[in-house]
Amino acid sequence: MEYVFSDRIRDLKGNAIREIFKALNNPNIVSFAGGLPNASVLPAREIAEITASLMSGDKASEVLQYGATEGYMPLRERIASFVSRYGIKGQTSDNVRIVSGGQQTIDLMCKAFVNKGDVVLVEDPTYLAVLHILKTYEGVAVGVKSGADGLDLEDLERKIIKYKPAMLYCVPTFSNPTGITYSTQVREGIARISAKYNLPVLEDDPYSEIRYEGERVPSVKSYDKVGNVVFTASFSKTIAPGLRCGYCVGEPELLNKLTIGKQAADVHSSMLSQGIIDEYMRRNLFDANLAKAIPLYKTKKDAMIAALDRYMPSCFTHTDPRGGLFVWGEFSEESGIDTQLAFMGACDRGVAYVSGETFFADGLDRRHIRLNFSNASEAQIEECMHKLGDYFKELIR
Amino acid sequence: MEYVFSDRIRDLKGNAIREIFKALNNPNIVSFAGGLPNASVLPAREIAEITASLMSGDKASEVLQYGATEGYMPLRERIASFVSRYGIKGQTSDNVRIVSGGQQTIDLMCKAFVNKGDVVLVEDPTYLAVLHILKTYEGVAVGVKSGADGLDLEDLERKIIKYKPAMLYCVPTFSNPTGITYSTQVREGIARISAKYNLPVLEDDPYSEIRYEGERVPSVKSYDKVGNVVFTASFSKTIAPGLRCGYCVGEPELLNKLTIGKQAADVHSSMLSQGIIDEYMRRNLFDANLAKAIPLYKTKKDAMIAALDRYMPSCFTHTDPRGGLFVWGEFSEESGIDTQLAFMGACDRGVAYVSGETFFADGLDRRHIRLNFSNASEAQIEECMHKLGDYFKELIR
Repeated sequence: MEYVFSDRIRDLKGNAIREIFKALNNPNIVSFAGGLPNASVLPAREIAEITASLMSGDKASEVLQYGATEGYMPLRERIASFVSRYGIKGQTSDNVRIVSGGQQTIDLMCKAFVNKGDVVLVEDPTYLAVLHILKTYEGVAVGVKSGADGLDLEDLERKIIKYKPAMLYCVPTFSNPTGITYSTQVREGIARISAKYNLPVLEDDPYSEIRYEGERVPSVKSYDKVGNVVFTASFSKTIAPGLRCGYCVGEPELLNKLTIGKQAADVHSSMLSQGIIDEYMRRNLFDANLAKAIPLYKTKKDAMIAALDRYMPSCFTHTDPRGGLFVWGEFSEESGIDTQLAFMGACDRGVAYVSGETFFADGLDRRHIRLNFSNASEAQIEECMHKLGDYFKELIR
Repeated sequence: MEYVFSDRIRDLKGNAIREIFKALNNPNIVSFAGGLPNASVLPAREIAEITASLMSGDKASEVLQYGATEGYMPLRERIASFVSRYGIKGQTSDNVRIVSGGQQTIDLMCKAFVNKGDVVLVEDPTYLAVLHILKTYEGVAVGVKSGADGLDLEDLERKIIKYKPAMLYCVPTFSNPTGITYSTQVREGIARISAKYNLPVLEDDPYSEIRYEGERVPSVKSYDKVGNVVFTASFSKTIAPGLRCGYCVGEPELLNKLTIGKQAADVHSSMLSQGIIDEYMRRNLFDANLAKAIPLYKTKKDAMIAALDRYMPSCFTHTDPRGGLFVWGEFSEESGIDTQLAFMGACDRGVAYVSGETFFADGLDRRHIRLNFSNASEAQIEECMHKLGDYFKELIR
């Protein structure tokens, strides 16, 4: 039959990266597109031990049973203390909700705040999933300018006044895709300006634990005096994405609406995943395992930077991120390179990246690429950046 | 700050049952409200063994990593064959998507088909979550009359013509809350009439595996000639709800839109849960464990029926379900009993049920109660139905 889909979904294409994933079933292509943790640091042995321990004790009937939409209480309590490392103090389990991966917080915040036609402000460029999610709510993304210190506060305030947005979404630490970390002044400024205009802010922090140099910076949430900021983080990059577990922290009155939205979406997150993560943290494996992953990722990152410097044409510049999982590269305007047009050719040569337009609110960029370095081997990085460099040099000629 | 929530969520209260759950933290109350599997049949040992096996082999890096939104391919392939037991033949993995519990299919179907103000037809009474989910899409539930054989086909066709609904939702086998199983004539009729009017149908089947007597009946989907029916089922009642895993079966063109909606919602379902369930089914534990659970549930069901007959006032009648997890009870109009008003008093006496209004599209019912029998012990069932009977007898006087 001919399906009559809803307005929100009729013309909606899949999230660009998820679609690329599917295109990449070809085993001859090395993907630098995703943000996948390296298989060697996924804690398989620990998860097996923890599951055996959970299943042989009293907790089995808890973690195999239906649970509260708000999340598994021991994990909520643990996270209420844990987030003090992000400068978020004085929290209780009431301030914490467990979600099915940090991305679910974006979905639930849009569900709670975005009416059809509403504007959501995002950093330009931003995490591509927020652009996709926003379309399912028939909202409109408007980009805020960003520099080396993070969001441009003047542009932020101007756009708040102009668009009366429903929400601001940002990734202040190792922003995806650029790797930028907002300065403390910008963080304080976001909290201050958003409070002034009664603007809900979603601070997404999947990457701050993956730091190669420098010191932690306080979260935007730590500067929140009025309760308008929700902080969300994921265990996907720090434990294992397959568990689909993350959390958010905020004011109970706001979080209660996210819970009502989550009741409708998936009832609650996997109790087994929540039980495993709670025990994983109780055993102090969180920082211990990251201490193994981070040097590995840094080595890969350095290998990519070196290979890009060696092989890419001179019209290409790139970041050297202090954390996170991505290098963000830019071709000069004069180069004439169109990264979107070039994508299939790169795949033909066995190398996949994400081209820039997927990260921009207006979807018009053609000059950037995002490259992930955590999943490939150093040999693959060397070989593929060589191929990519040769390919782009050909395109210039 | 004062939060300005979206239209869809501003006045939305939580799903009634989830809210009851929270109120029931009082350990002195025995809850007959939920649909919880009995802890004694949750396969803890098997899940520990399977997890140990998955984590020590090649599959660890698959089930701990990001996965496809469509679901874990080995499980999709397995389910494509598995559903032949419901009369659904000739399926491939393309016809199968994995979801985070059967309820997510309802959410994704609404996302794909329901615009603000659209009508969704439901059996009256129906599974309460669909009414809650529909509100998050600003849709309108309209009830279709139902009798001993299931949906009234004349009323269905009349309401399709009158309301031009976006979708029909039904639970044709051991319907929640009434326990009714639609006849094969009604099933065929639903498929025929919905095809005639180009109406998408969501057939929800969480309970058909929990059968105490009689033979399997073919699904509505098995009569689908045009591809408008989506069949969904959950592993919550048959394996473990804490894994949050279910599936849906339908035409790829339709399912692809559900996948786009799911990309935005939670990226994919827990890969660990999917890996566990795939291996659980591969080891033929699905039917084996149900063969232990069903006699247990039947004993509890019979205990509840006997206790209701013994203790409840004569103005009360009830079903004796041939499957599923619920008894549906009705007070005569003359009794003057208001089950919604009576709820808190029953809780004071240590007994919780779900009162009828939560299952009806118009929310007006005051004469029904739904009682779950799978989770309580036989002694609790005896004691609590005694208390409940005494309480309702008092209310009549």
